[in-house]
Amino acid sequence: MGKINIITIGREYASGGRAVGKLISEKLGIPFYNKEILHMAAEKLEMSADDVKFADETAASSLLYSMSLMSNLSAATALPLNDRIFIEEREVIKTLAQQGPCVIVGRCADSILKEIRDDVFNVFIYADSESRARRAVEEYGEKPENVYTSLRKHDKKRSTYYNLNTGQKWGAKDNYDLCLNSAKIGIDMCAEAIIKLASEL
Amino acid sequence: MGKINIITIGREYASGGRAVGKLISEKLGIPFYNKEILHMAAEKLEMSADDVKFADETAASSLLYSMSLMSNLSAATALPLNDRIFIEEREVIKTLAQQGPCVIVGRCADSILKEIRDDVFNVFIYADSESRARRAVEEYGEKPENVYTSLRKHDKKRSTYYNLNTGQKWGAKDNYDLCLNSAKIGIDMCAEAIIKLASEL
Repeated sequence: MGKINIITIGREYASGGRAVGKLISEKLGIPFYNKEILHMAAEKLEMSADDVKFADETAASSLLYSMSLMSNLSAATALPLNDRIFIEEREVIKTLAQQGPCVIVGRCADSILKEIRDDVFNVFIYADSESRARRAVEEYGEKPENVYTSLRKHDKKRSTYYNLNTGQKWGAKDNYDLCLNSAKIGIDMCAEAIIKLASEL
Repeated sequence: MGKINIITIGREYASGGRAVGKLISEKLGIPFYNKEILHMAAEKLEMSADDVKFADETAASSLLYSMSLMSNLSAATALPLNDRIFIEEREVIKTLAQQGPCVIVGRCADSILKEIRDDVFNVFIYADSESRARRAVEEYGEKPENVYTSLRKHDKKRSTYYNLNTGQKWGAKDNYDLCLNSAKIGIDMCAEAIIKLASEL
């Protein structure tokens, strides 16, 4: 992929960002990491399946946690579980990036890798609420009567997780190299455009 | 260009958005409109050269103006000059869009055309302040000691103009179909990516 090895994808809930990432990984024949990162981190921390389920991209920031970030502890066992997971996920993301080209969805990967590597292309996928509601109902089987609440709830969770862990604003275009409206551009064309840019940069 | 006929480009000051638009227009062989729109509007209003110089993308909103938007007056002579210009520019933009494929830079064209046409691709070009400062000094001949003030001043002017005239937030990605970081992607590749997407949508 030229100078770019790692493609990170941030995404609004039900915008199709995961599907875009999956497609890129298939077309380029490189690994795709999303929930896998949580599972790798959980394994290192010897977490139970139940704890893992509730910890995905969930923030529980604390003073202890902020201190651990400053001192760069990687397994500060005194910290709340969600914070220990983030610290562990951060290490997993850095390790995966070292292993070669890949696509990483969510998990603040853009911010984590931006500071230590220059071969990262950071993308954000978004869409209008109506299109996302339609996708959540059709693709994820959500109930139409609850879907707008669900969009808000998921986006709130992701933005809190991102904002607390990075000190930046989730979805603010300045954090990314490219932002695509998947409702207008479509999943396939989003993937194609990202591949083309990442290959030629 | 497939379903897309009009490409609008919003841009942070000194991000190279104008250059991207010019390149697209040259490669596709379609007209490029930027300051031309102001001059066409000014001609209709029989404005002096001095008035034109100070009115470019400058807002002076008023209650009268808001009322005129609601009643869709096109030459309400009682309005402040800047508002009369915007109303006239809006008509010029609509007319130009009817005449065939083109690239339009700035002037709230995305918002003006989105409501009445579905063949519009709305793009926003941005970059980090350091890259824009460098461009402003190298390309526009600005003084290094004043350049960050200049960036802020120009962006403020553009955002006020956009926000007051459209009721939306300038540079907020939800208003656009695609946002590109020109410092990372480069002017040429920005133009290529936009052309490819606009051609295949």
